[in-house]
Amino acid sequence: MPHIALPEGVPGIVGPMMAYPETEKHLNGLAEALLRGPSSLTPAEREMIATYVSSANDCYFCTNAHAATARCLLGPGASVVDEVLADYRRAPINDKLKALLVIAGKVQQGGRRVSDDDVARARQAGADDKAIHDTVLIAAAFCMFNRYVDGLATWTPDDPAIYHRTGEMLGTLGYLSSIRGK
Amino acid sequence: MPHIALPEGVPGIVGPMMAYPETEKHLNGLAEALLRGPSSLTPAEREMIATYVSSANDCYFCTNAHAATARCLLGPGASVVDEVLADYRRAPINDKLKALLVIAGKVQQGGRRVSDDDVARARQAGADDKAIHDTVLIAAAFCMFNRYVDGLATWTPDDPAIYHRTGEMLGTLGYLSSIRGK
Repeated sequence: MPHIALPEGVPGIVGPMMAYPETEKHLNGLAEALLRGPSSLTPAEREMIATYVSSANDCYFCTNAHAATARCLLGPGASVVDEVLADYRRAPINDKLKALLVIAGKVQQGGRRVSDDDVARARQAGADDKAIHDTVLIAAAFCMFNRYVDGLATWTPDDPAIYHRTGEMLGTLGYLSSIRGK
Repeated sequence: MPHIALPEGVPGIVGPMMAYPETEKHLNGLAEALLRGPSSLTPAEREMIATYVSSANDCYFCTNAHAATARCLLGPGASVVDEVLADYRRAPINDKLKALLVIAGKVQQGGRRVSDDDVARARQAGADDKAIHDTVLIAAAFCMFNRYVDGLATWTPDDPAIYHRTGEMLGTLGYLSSIRGK
């Protein structure tokens, strides 16, 4: 049961977002800018970073919701999401994304762990300042989203169909239509 | 040296916020809503939660900037901030804030660590749903802000006068005038 009163039958972060619209608008605004706004990373790459960090934070809701979103965005290549979750070092992704996932993993553990060498390797693989910035902020932001979801003990459904529907919605409509003005 | 190009001579989170306004507006909007908006917690109590979490995340910039902000808001009682940082369990703060700092500390370590008992104790001490919500989201948000600041290796000044000025500005003007529309 959630630690505070939340709308019933609403999964994960959607419950506190509906109950507390004064912070919801900034949380969804941030997600839209970070995951869908202009970037040298594709939306699917950014969703895979979000999924990986959520998995490292052991957040079942966010891991499954953003994995489903990445699959929706990837279409025929969707199985790569599961390979990233299993072991991104062996997954069929480019060296740039691998190097950025190293940085994201360090940020998840603590910001100071990111080294000059980690950043140099990402640059050698083709990452620019914006890609490095976005990776650090996506990883940091999911350390927030994951803690918000689990720190309030929000409802975490088991049914894969719920995550599939969530992923289709976030993959096609983005974050600003998820609650407001559908 | 920061991991990406940032404006020179600008401390901590202000550098990436100036360089990346598309996310800055949502980050400052979230900070303003969470730390200054309507709540059953005072702005000073919320700044102390932010300071405590930043200290647990070993983020020198955020710890000192938000400690200075809390001191500005508290005025004559400002020394309590240092007592909270030293050991909040022995600090002269009310039982409600102590119980909420327990929850904030658990969120900093991971959202799943918050127990029903932690929440029950906070309620017994007078915390309502909004106080519990805000505590969880402040702690989660500073897990983001701290990682953004340190994950990019932003400039961390040593000079206490810089933090004092930052605290006076955030304590009197809030978060929306810090960059835009001064």
